[in-house]
Amino acid sequence: MTIIEQIISRIRPIDKSVLEATQKRLDNLTKPLGSLGRMEEIAKQIVAISGKKNPVLKNKVIFTLAGDHGIVEEGVSAYPKEVTPQMVYNFLNNGAGINVLAKHAGARVVVADLGVAEELKIKNENFKIKKIGLGTKNFIKGPAMSSEDAVKSIEAGIELVEEELKNGLDIIGTGEMGIGNTTPSSAITSVICNLEVEKVTGKGTGIDNKTLENKINAIKKGIRKNNPNPKDGLDVLAKIGGFEIGGLTGIILAGAANRIPIVIDGFISTAAALIAVTIAPNVKDYIIAGHCSREPGHKVQLQWLGLRPTLDLDLRLGEGTGAVLAMNIVDASCKILNEMATFESAGVSTKTGE
Amino acid sequence: MTIIEQIISRIRPIDKSVLEATQKRLDNLTKPLGSLGRMEEIAKQIVAISGKKNPVLKNKVIFTLAGDHGIVEEGVSAYPKEVTPQMVYNFLNNGAGINVLAKHAGARVVVADLGVAEELKIKNENFKIKKIGLGTKNFIKGPAMSSEDAVKSIEAGIELVEEELKNGLDIIGTGEMGIGNTTPSSAITSVICNLEVEKVTGKGTGIDNKTLENKINAIKKGIRKNNPNPKDGLDVLAKIGGFEIGGLTGIILAGAANRIPIVIDGFISTAAALIAVTIAPNVKDYIIAGHCSREPGHKVQLQWLGLRPTLDLDLRLGEGTGAVLAMNIVDASCKILNEMATFESAGVSTKTGE
Repeated sequence: MTIIEQIISRIRPIDKSVLEATQKRLDNLTKPLGSLGRMEEIAKQIVAISGKKNPVLKNKVIFTLAGDHGIVEEGVSAYPKEVTPQMVYNFLNNGAGINVLAKHAGARVVVADLGVAEELKIKNENFKIKKIGLGTKNFIKGPAMSSEDAVKSIEAGIELVEEELKNGLDIIGTGEMGIGNTTPSSAITSVICNLEVEKVTGKGTGIDNKTLENKINAIKKGIRKNNPNPKDGLDVLAKIGGFEIGGLTGIILAGAANRIPIVIDGFISTAAALIAVTIAPNVKDYIIAGHCSREPGHKVQLQWLGLRPTLDLDLRLGEGTGAVLAMNIVDASCKILNEMATFESAGVSTKTGE
Repeated sequence: MTIIEQIISRIRPIDKSVLEATQKRLDNLTKPLGSLGRMEEIAKQIVAISGKKNPVLKNKVIFTLAGDHGIVEEGVSAYPKEVTPQMVYNFLNNGAGINVLAKHAGARVVVADLGVAEELKIKNENFKIKKIGLGTKNFIKGPAMSSEDAVKSIEAGIELVEEELKNGLDIIGTGEMGIGNTTPSSAITSVICNLEVEKVTGKGTGIDNKTLENKINAIKKGIRKNNPNPKDGLDVLAKIGGFEIGGLTGIILAGAANRIPIVIDGFISTAAALIAVTIAPNVKDYIIAGHCSREPGHKVQLQWLGLRPTLDLDLRLGEGTGAVLAMNIVDASCKILNEMATFESAGVSTKTGE
């Protein structure tokens, strides 16, 4: 078995009976039945995922994966390519949005280079080099990467999770940085969700209408040129994906295999989740949707996955910012289960006539 | 001037030019323009409210006010009246939902008795006795309280804020506990928002359809009997309100007068906000809507106030739970402004062509 096949073989559907048993416990806490709404759903899911009756989310890790994209040649982004490595430095100097929000939530940020188009000479314990190549190829001319590199990028994500397990890992958040990476994400979404490119392509970091037209045309050309098979996640990743997207796919698969809940961030992270679920459908049980991004294709992705976002704050920054904010709610949901008094222990009367 | 008039005279509209100046600062941070969506709006609002360029929300306080309601005689609630004092004990033993979530967010909980129908003999530094009466009167028979008591309940809320100012107070969350208190809240909402009782009355803690019918009829009778003036917040409070609702009104007014942001919780807290805004329209600038409750009238209230909820987690517990969860997002929003690097300081390129 390949490394990916091994990981897939370990991903089991969650035990639904645990959800019911946990609801009964929630119903004994001093609050009207069901009155904590989505938090109760989240608490149950975390118990079922982790197999722990009282899960404590002490070690929170955001994986922020960086990669560049050949498709930027087509003029699809508002920012120049050099911003990808510049932002990696910013992450490691704790100056980016994800650093501020991770500190706020008590989460570690692991930054990894999956395919930045520049050799980064950085020594930092929070920085991992898992470079598959110096950026992907322009996918309007042929596949973004070889099948072998697609496999390698997923394996790199698996390695990142396995390395972090040693440092403690109770919950994973996905994040990314890569100028141009909403473009492959729209392509992936169009193919896997079987929707027109126009419906799943937005303004990313803030492009004008002319650039949006370029972007839509480039995606259409790329899909026509490569003809990826929507049922084959690896094929989609290789032909129209990205190295950091492959890495995130591996992180999601490895999280599920290790029974660790995964909070996904925005449009690019959710594109990786589409690929992961296409490869291993059971992975869906392990995913919590962090938020709903302002990028129009994100809603489409979440609907396809059957997930309801935890937050809706019009974010579109990426990096893992929406995931880490939502992690805070997930953490709080577990604490409800772990720390609230029961009707009996607090001497509070239950509903009239019960 | 009365105490309430003094407080009102201190509430000024926020300075809109501060919002623009703060947006410029946000636009210099290493992220695409506007990509932190609602968090940017919140950060700007907090700067404008507090008058501090870099607000730090260190002292977070949830005021959880308890009161009983004569209207429960009409069979409007799923829980017996004794739950109100029982939950007060639960709050002070740290067993309730609000305790768990406040600890999670690093907030203090101040519990106050505004009108529990029982003498509570509790000594606890987090418990304040501001009792106006042993529960309100049944408002289908006449006013819930006298005009004098309505004034006293608002003054009690003002006192609570003033007392906490000494301990440090950077942000306020509102919360409440009172069996039956969705009933006066629906009555207040129907009157102030000028909508049919049916449209703003829900199942509260979880009543059946028969009880819901009782509840709607009781509210209709109460409004007909008392005929409150929708333009006169004090009149509405006295005739169909509650002591804890009056207290929350005072807290909101005093927060605004002291330039402290107020995160309102669910349906009952927002009923208090309706009264506060009716009394002093400028108070609206100081309010952040914590969440959207599953109680149907809450959406109506938020629309009337022109506020968009920060969270939407199907909560309907009250106590301040939705407010304290949202406080976490508000806190994070300020940290974005205070801690993120600028394009210049991080050496990151700005948008192409800018």
